[in-house]
Amino acid sequence: MPSPDLLGALRSPAREAPESGIVDIMNYGRQRGGVMPLWAGEGDLPTPSFIIDAAAQALAAGETFYTWQRGIPELREALAQYHTRHFGRVFTADEFFVTGSGMQSIQIALAMTAEAGSEVIIPTPAWPNAAAATGIAGARPVEVPLQFGNDGWTLDIERIAAAITDRTRVLVMVSPSNPTGWTATQDELRELLALARAHRLWIVADEIYSRFWYGEGARAPSFFDVMAPDDRILFVNTFSKNWAMTGWRMGWIAANPSLGQVVENLIQYSTSGVAQFMQRAGVVALKQGEDFVATQVARARQSRDIACDILGRTGRCRFAIPKGAFYLFFSVDGENDMPALARRLVDEAQAGLAPGTAFGAGGEHFMRLCFARDPKQIEEACTRIAKVLEM
Amino acid sequence: MPSPDLLGALRSPAREAPESGIVDIMNYGRQRGGVMPLWAGEGDLPTPSFIIDAAAQALAAGETFYTWQRGIPELREALAQYHTRHFGRVFTADEFFVTGSGMQSIQIALAMTAEAGSEVIIPTPAWPNAAAATGIAGARPVEVPLQFGNDGWTLDIERIAAAITDRTRVLVMVSPSNPTGWTATQDELRELLALARAHRLWIVADEIYSRFWYGEGARAPSFFDVMAPDDRILFVNTFSKNWAMTGWRMGWIAANPSLGQVVENLIQYSTSGVAQFMQRAGVVALKQGEDFVATQVARARQSRDIACDILGRTGRCRFAIPKGAFYLFFSVDGENDMPALARRLVDEAQAGLAPGTAFGAGGEHFMRLCFARDPKQIEEACTRIAKVLEM
Repeated sequence: MPSPDLLGALRSPAREAPESGIVDIMNYGRQRGGVMPLWAGEGDLPTPSFIIDAAAQALAAGETFYTWQRGIPELREALAQYHTRHFGRVFTADEFFVTGSGMQSIQIALAMTAEAGSEVIIPTPAWPNAAAATGIAGARPVEVPLQFGNDGWTLDIERIAAAITDRTRVLVMVSPSNPTGWTATQDELRELLALARAHRLWIVADEIYSRFWYGEGARAPSFFDVMAPDDRILFVNTFSKNWAMTGWRMGWIAANPSLGQVVENLIQYSTSGVAQFMQRAGVVALKQGEDFVATQVARARQSRDIACDILGRTGRCRFAIPKGAFYLFFSVDGENDMPALARRLVDEAQAGLAPGTAFGAGGEHFMRLCFARDPKQIEEACTRIAKVLEM
Repeated sequence: MPSPDLLGALRSPAREAPESGIVDIMNYGRQRGGVMPLWAGEGDLPTPSFIIDAAAQALAAGETFYTWQRGIPELREALAQYHTRHFGRVFTADEFFVTGSGMQSIQIALAMTAEAGSEVIIPTPAWPNAAAATGIAGARPVEVPLQFGNDGWTLDIERIAAAITDRTRVLVMVSPSNPTGWTATQDELRELLALARAHRLWIVADEIYSRFWYGEGARAPSFFDVMAPDDRILFVNTFSKNWAMTGWRMGWIAANPSLGQVVENLIQYSTSGVAQFMQRAGVVALKQGEDFVATQVARARQSRDIACDILGRTGRCRFAIPKGAFYLFFSVDGENDMPALARRLVDEAQAGLAPGTAFGAGGEHFMRLCFARDPKQIEEACTRIAKVLEM
């Protein structure tokens, strides 16, 4: 067997990149039939047909050639208009850069900011990919756990401050949070920004769940509300959630236009742009997709309430009612091996959930359930889960 | 202006990544009308409709969800069959990994092998992206120029050997070469492999132009012809050229299956996979695309001969007749500022060529012309270019 030698010859940060604990359970369950897939961050709806049609038409029209590395002008303009509608100021196209997924936006943001040997602070529990990408880049993720108590999840900004060293370059802020649903208030965003300014840190702002917000107003508080143009903030975002386009792999970065050439170069030297026919779909999503977003958010809110109700009534599940995003992150009294529980729920409840172990420090005793689905399906799945937990 | 401060705060390998000299001239010319685009590595044909239809059908069927990070099983199996047909042994699906472009394949291969501070040897002139990606990864590209003489382009393997230091980890071998058309013989591949074995280097084998080969047989010599299963070779490839899918951004890696989990993790933490509806198109391309490949290669051969003839007759152009790939790389007696000549050809000949300065050491005095087009178009463009050069 040649394998050990070849593996051993790899660059160690690549060899040591962790398997995704989410993909792990998906691979476990995917080949079984009839499992309700609540493990990933995606819903039950396929991409709406008006979006699909735009891509199909562009394909048929032969838009299959290389295109602008920053994204086609029409899509960057549509991103500017979308942000102008939702984020309280006039945005311009030169602030936006189209990427091959929210994940690639994160990778590029880290390549721009996180030197080898530097430290990247990541509040946890968190979607694991930012930490893993940090490691692959040769930097060190520093986890700062949120607290879970009777007032739900809380971020202690003093703990973030205490984690800063002279090697810290970046603070990754995901709000609303996947998996906890915790969402920073405007005051918290202001405090975090002040901290970043004082230590000259970059903030990588992941606000992809901004629209999935169950509080006042049509979106969650945003760094856009509190920042100045010259703050060191890179926004990473995706088409995946708002418009049910998870499988497309298309996202964007919002950044100060002075960084445009660097972002373009990093796109060029990683995937060299995004298919033009996909970008046409993005334009339509941004321009005509508001009703669909509203429908999705309304369903998610209803499903959230159902999941909280059914799992709450088991008497064994503890959680904070999520303020944003579309996950219920819950612990189960008496259950400590969450990967084992995840497999048991696949086998016995035909429900695919992600074990909290996949989400870093503070998540070890939780399960993540994605409720971005038809409320009836969530009711069914939660009833089956409750039955297993009550056995 | 906040710009200098923000730029200055970036990680230096990102800030210092070079602009692509190819994209630079494309951006210059793209907004002018009527320029024949011979600057990029793509032809005039849109993706064939049987390939487009497969994607459109998958889209209409709602294949818009997350999928396997290594690629869908059907596509990995089709890649195995394609390689079995063309590369002289039986391949299996577990040797193949679907990526979001040939460029991403290179990025992942470098992430697997090129530590920060290590050296990566790249024979030049070469498509610039591998060197740029090396720099962004924090490693150092070491250029080893080929010689251009009366016997065309030649690789002196002694010069590669002389460039190896104790920091060298990787040798990037592009054969057939973009931009020179130089193609390694089987003996040269054997010698390069022996050198890599002796120094325990990884080879990143870019054989994306393998089918665009004007010598004996249906493809160029390949490392697959000379290697053992446990050799440290990562093959990077793309759907772009063979099947006119440049704009799709879809490629693959072929590697020893023992490296599979690492490749999967690197895909997960960079773009998290490729759209399933695009992969359906890839399956059809591999299974039903042979006639189309043959047509493209025949056209390219004819166009190559026309370009060589017309530019040769100016008496000012010097080049080696390319053995593979689809570029004519030529110098022009008396012309030294190739970026300026590129702009002049856009303005005066309505022909978009890439200046050789974009291709590293040894390419400074050349121009690259992509001839993967309708022979009539190549005749027209070359006639216009010749007229400008003869003024």
